[in-house]
Amino acid sequence: MDAGLFTANNVWMMLATALVFFMHTGFAFLEIGLTRQKNTINILFKNIFIITVGLLLYYAWGFNMMYPGFEEGSSGIFGFAGFGIDAPEGGMTPDYADGGYTWWTDFLFQGMFAATAATIVSGAVAERIKIGSFMIFTVIYVGLVYPIVGAWKWGGGFLDSWGFYDFAGSTLVHSVGGWAALVAIFLLGSRIGKFGEDGKPKAIPGHSIPLATAGVLILWLGWFGFNGGSVLSADPELTSLVLVTTSLAAAAGGVGAFILSTIMYKNMDLTMFLNGILGGLVGITAGADLMSPNEAVIIGLLAGFIIVLGVALIDKLKLDDPVGAVTVHLITGIWGTLAVGLFGDKAGAGQFMTQLYGVLIVGAFCVVSAFIILGALKAIMGLRVSKEEEVEGLDIHEHGMDAYPDFTND
Amino acid sequence: MDAGLFTANNVWMMLATALVFFMHTGFAFLEIGLTRQKNTINILFKNIFIITVGLLLYYAWGFNMMYPGFEEGSSGIFGFAGFGIDAPEGGMTPDYADGGYTWWTDFLFQGMFAATAATIVSGAVAERIKIGSFMIFTVIYVGLVYPIVGAWKWGGGFLDSWGFYDFAGSTLVHSVGGWAALVAIFLLGSRIGKFGEDGKPKAIPGHSIPLATAGVLILWLGWFGFNGGSVLSADPELTSLVLVTTSLAAAAGGVGAFILSTIMYKNMDLTMFLNGILGGLVGITAGADLMSPNEAVIIGLLAGFIIVLGVALIDKLKLDDPVGAVTVHLITGIWGTLAVGLFGDKAGAGQFMTQLYGVLIVGAFCVVSAFIILGALKAIMGLRVSKEEEVEGLDIHEHGMDAYPDFTND
Amino acid sequence: MDAGLFTANNVWMMLATALVFFMHTGFAFLEIGLTRQKNTINILFKNIFIITVGLLLYYAWGFNMMYPGFEEGSSGIFGFAGFGIDAPEGGMTPDYADGGYTWWTDFLFQGMFAATAATIVSGAVAERIKIGSFMIFTVIYVGLVYPIVGAWKWGGGFLDSWGFYDFAGSTLVHSVGGWAALVAIFLLGSRIGKFGEDGKPKAIPGHSIPLATAGVLILWLGWFGFNGGSVLSADPELTSLVLVTTSLAAAAGGVGAFILSTIMYKNMDLTMFLNGILGGLVGITAGADLMSPNEAVIIGLLAGFIIVLGVALIDKLKLDDPVGAVTVHLITGIWGTLAVGLFGDKAGAGQFMTQLYGVLIVGAFCVVSAFIILGALKAIMGLRVSKEEEVEGLDIHEHGMDAYPDFTND
Repeated sequence: MDAGLFTANNVWMMLATALVFFMHTGFAFLEIGLTRQKNTINILFKNIFIITVGLLLYYAWGFNMMYPGFEEGSSGIFGFAGFGIDAPEGGMTPDYADGGYTWWTDFLFQGMFAATAATIVSGAVAERIKIGSFMIFTVIYVGLVYPIVGAWKWGGGFLDSWGFYDFAGSTLVHSVGGWAALVAIFLLGSRIGKFGEDGKPKAIPGHSIPLATAGVLILWLGWFGFNGGSVLSADPELTSLVLVTTSLAAAAGGVGAFILSTIMYKNMDLTMFLNGILGGLVGITAGADLMSPNEAVIIGLLAGFIIVLGVALIDKLKLDDPVGAVTVHLITGIWGTLAVGLFGDKAGAGQFMTQLYGVLIVGAFCVVSAFIILGALKAIMGLRVSKEEEVEGLDIHEHGMDAYPDFTND
Repeated sequence: MDAGLFTANNVWMMLATALVFFMHTGFAFLEIGLTRQKNTINILFKNIFIITVGLLLYYAWGFNMMYPGFEEGSSGIFGFAGFGIDAPEGGMTPDYADGGYTWWTDFLFQGMFAATAATIVSGAVAERIKIGSFMIFTVIYVGLVYPIVGAWKWGGGFLDSWGFYDFAGSTLVHSVGGWAALVAIFLLGSRIGKFGEDGKPKAIPGHSIPLATAGVLILWLGWFGFNGGSVLSADPELTSLVLVTTSLAAAAGGVGAFILSTIMYKNMDLTMFLNGILGGLVGITAGADLMSPNEAVIIGLLAGFIIVLGVALIDKLKLDDPVGAVTVHLITGIWGTLAVGLFGDKAGAGQFMTQLYGVLIVGAFCVVSAFIILGALKAIMGLRVSKEEEVEGLDIHEHGMDAYPDFTND
Repeated sequence: MDAGLFTANNVWMMLATALVFFMHTGFAFLEIGLTRQKNTINILFKNIFIITVGLLLYYAWGFNMMYPGFEEGSSGIFGFAGFGIDAPEGGMTPDYADGGYTWWTDFLFQGMFAATAATIVSGAVAERIKIGSFMIFTVIYVGLVYPIVGAWKWGGGFLDSWGFYDFAGSTLVHSVGGWAALVAIFLLGSRIGKFGEDGKPKAIPGHSIPLATAGVLILWLGWFGFNGGSVLSADPELTSLVLVTTSLAAAAGGVGAFILSTIMYKNMDLTMFLNGILGGLVGITAGADLMSPNEAVIIGLLAGFIIVLGVALIDKLKLDDPVGAVTVHLITGIWGTLAVGLFGDKAGAGQFMTQLYGVLIVGAFCVVSAFIILGALKAIMGLRVSKEEEVEGLDIHEHGMDAYPDFTND
C-alpha cells in the first residue's frame, strides 16, 4: 500500500476519534440540560469521571480484553494481551489493519467508544444516585462488561462467527448502556415528585434547553466519527455512504418524532424532536454501511416514531428516566439491530433471527451483570441519596458547589 | 489518479461537510444569544426544523434540481435527476469529480449548505413570527428557491456561462438568505418596543452573550469547511490559501467593526465586534480563492466598517432585525460579491459589472419569490403572533415549554 | 513525494489548525465559567480581541520574526522576512517542509498558537484589569515577546542549537503565557474580597460550571490539533502516538487531581478535576512524541498532583489567579519541560539540565519583559479598574452591556 493512502486512512481515523471524543461534550450538555440545575455539578462530575477513568481502564486492560482477543483454539469468550507494554510487531505499518490505521489509532478510537456505555447510564440515573456507587459501577461496567460483549462481535468471538452484524454499535455500545440504564432506574426508583399520588407522571422540566439542543447537535456531529470511523479506513465510497445514511436517518428520526408527538400531544415539543434525532442516529448505527439513502430515511423515520411511543411506555411502566436514555439507546438500539435483517444488503429471515439472538444474548448478559453489580452496591452501600439530599440537590451535598452561584444564591 | 490522493481529497471534503454541519450549532447559539429568553425554545425549534427538513428536501429533489442540472440542450433554468434511486455510473470513483470526492460526499456537502439560507432568515424574524408560517416558508424557500438560484451558477446555468463568480456563496447562500430576511422583516414589522413613540430605536438586549460569542466562534470554525470545502478537493495550495484568506478576513472584519463602532459610539461593543467577524467571513466568501492575504485583510476590514454602518442603516429604515442578519448576510454578501471585481485574480471592470448583474438578478428573483411566498402566507394564515403571545413569549404559547425553568419560574 | 501523501499531510495540518482555533472557544468558556457573571462580557471581549488582533499581528510580522528566522551567519536572536508579500519559492510544494504542509498552512497553524499566550494571561487577570491596558499589553506580548522566544527554539535559534526540546510548547506557549500571568497578578493585586482580613483566601465561585466544563472538554479536543499538528506532518506512527500520549496524560491528570484533592479537602471538587485534566495536557505537551503510553500516564498523574499543590501554593502566596492559569500553564508547563529529561526517548542528566536552562532563560526573559510592559502601563495609565467598577462589574462600566440581562435585571 502506498504511503499516501495509509496516511489518508489514518488521518480519517484519528479525526473520527476526535469527533467521538467530542460526543462526551454532547452527552454532558444533553444530560444537564434535561435535568435540574441543582444536580448539574454532579452530572458533570460523573461524565468527567467516566471519560478519564474509562480511558485509563481501557488502556490498562479493556483494549486487550476486546482485541485482538482470540488466539487459535481459545474459548472465544475472554482474551487478554497487554497494551502499553509493546506495540505488536508491524503495529504501525499498513500490515496491522489493511492500511486502515495504526495500532495506536486503533486503541484510541476504541477507547473513546468504551466510555460511552457508562455515559448512557449516567443520564438515566441522574438526580438521585449516590456518586460513590455510580463510580464503582462505572469502573466495573466499562472495565469488564463492555469489553467482554465487544469481544464477542468486534473481537472476533462467537457472535461474529454466527454472522451477527452490528456495524458501529447499536447493540454493542448503545444497548449495552441502555440495558444497564434500565436495570438501574428499576433498582433506583423514580425521583421524588415524578409520579403523583394518582400514579400519573409529571414532567420535571430540564433546566437548560439551549444546552440540551447543543448537546444533540454535537452528538450528531460526533456521529460523523462514530459511524464514519467504524468503516476502519477512509474508503471513499463506504465512508461517504455512511455519512449520508447517518445524517438522513438523524433528520428523518427528528421529523418522525416531531410529527407523531405533535399529533399525539398537540404540542410542538422540542425535546421530542431532539430525542427523535438521537433515535434516528442510534437506529442507523447497526447498519449504516448496508443501507441505501432511502432505507436510511425509513429506518430513521420509524426510529422517530419509536422514540415517541417508547417515552410513553417508560412512563406507563412507572420508570423514571430523566433524559430518555432507555428509549433512545436501548429501544432504538434494538430497532436498529433488527433493521439489519429487514433492510439493506443483508436483509433476510436468517439474518433477522441472528440479529434477534444477538440482541437477546447481549441483553441477558448485560441485565444479569447490571443486576449483580448494582444489586451488590445497593446491599452494601446503597444506591440512592437521602431524601433531604435529593430535595436540596446533589451539588451542594456531594460537591459543596453550585453550578450557577450568581443566579441561585440571591 | 492514485487511491491516496482520491482518499485524501474525500477525507477533506467529508470533514468540511462536518464543519458546515457544525455551523448550525453556531447559528443556533448566535440567534438565541442575541434575543430574549422567552423565545429561546421557539428559535431552537425553528433551527432544528430547518436542519432536518432542509436536508430531507435536498435529498428528495434539491440536489437534483441544483446538480448536475443541465443536460445538453436544456434551457439552463431547471434540472432534475433523482437522488436516492441510483448513483450515477462512476459516482464513487475519481471520474465523478476529478477525484475531488464521491457523489455521496457531494450530496451531503451541498445539503449542509442548503439549510443555511433559511437559518439566516430565522434570526431576522425571531421573536414574532408564527411557527407554522415559518415552517411552510422554509420548505418552499429551501426546497425550491435555493436550488434554482444555485443551479444558475454552481449547477452550470446562465450565471456561470456569463462568468459570474461566487466561490463559496456570498451571493448564492448568504444573500439568498439575506434577501428573504429583508422581505420578511419588512412584512412582519418590528417587535413591540423596538421603536419608541418618537421613532427612535431602542436596544432589546440579547439574553446570553456567552452563547452568542460561542456561536460566532463556531461559525468561524465552520467556515474552515464552508470555504475550505468549496475548493472541491484538498488541493494543498488552494485549500490552505483559502483558510488563510478566510481567517484573516474574519479577524480584520472584527477589528474593523470594533474600531469604527468604538469611534462612533464611544463604547466597546462586543456584539459589533462579533458581527464584524461574521461580516469579514461573508465578505471573503465570494472570492476566498482569488485573494492574496493582503487583499483578504482589506476586504475584511471594509466588511467590518460596512457592518457598523449597515446596522445603523437598518435602524434608520425602521426595520427590526434582532440579530443583524440582513447586514451580515445580505449587505456584506453583496460587498463580497462585488469585491471579486475589485480585488484579486479576476479584478476588472468587466468582472465587476458581471458581479453586479449577478447580485441584481439573484436579488430580484429572491425578493419576488419571498414576497410571493410570505405575502401569500400573510394573507392566508398570518405571519405574526398575537400581541399577547409576543409579550409573554413564544415558548410558552407555541411549545408549552420554558428554556430555563429553574431560573424563570421562581 | 507523491501527491496523495503531500495532500494527506496538509489535510491533517489544516484540520489541526482548525482544532487549535477551536481552543479559543474552550478558553473563553473556561475563563467566564470560573469567574462572576458581572465580568463576562469583558472577558469575552478580551478573548475576541486576542484572537483577531493576535492573528493580524502574526500576519504582519510575528510569523516572519519566528520563522524562517535565521539566515546563515545571523545572530540567531532576531529574524524578519515579510509575510503577505510573496510566498517563498516552492512554498506550496513538498519542497517547503518535507511535504508536511504548505507555507500558507504553516502560517495559519503557527498563527493560531500565537494568540494562546495572551489568552492564558486573560484568565489570570480577569475581573480587575483595565481593558485598555490589557489590549496594549496583548499587542506587545503577542506581537514581540512570543515570536522572539519561539524563534529561539522553533525558529532554529540558540535554544534549538543547545538541544533544548519542547515538542508543542509546554514552555514556548504555556509558560510564556504563564510567566506573564504571574507577573500580572503580582502587579495587579488580588480581587476585592479574595483574602479576608485574617489573610485567609476565600473562594469566589465561578458563575457557570457547565461552561467551564465544556471549555475543558473543548480544550482537550483542541489538543488533538495542538499536539497532533506539532508533528508537522500526518506521519501515521508519530501522530497516532502523540494523540494517545496526549489523551492518556489528560485522563491521568484529571484522576490525579481528583484523588489528591478529595484526600486533602474531603470534597469531590469538579474544578480541581478539570484543572487536573488541563495540567495533564500541558504537562505532556513538551514531550508528547517521546513518551510511551505508560510514561504519559505517569507524567499526567504527577501533573494532576502538581495542580492541587500549585493552587494551594498560589493561595498561600496571597496571589489571586481566578482560573488557576499560573498553576495550569506555568507550573505544569515547567514540569512537562523538565519531564523530557526524566522520561522517554531523550531522558538523561544532560538533557534535564538543558531543559532546566531553557526554562530559566525563557522565564527570565518573559518575567523581565512582562515587568517592563506591565510596569510601564501601570505607571502611565494604570492597570486596575476603580473599586466602584470592580464591585459593580466591568461589563456595565467598560461595555455598557450585561451578559444575561433577562436574568440579572429583574
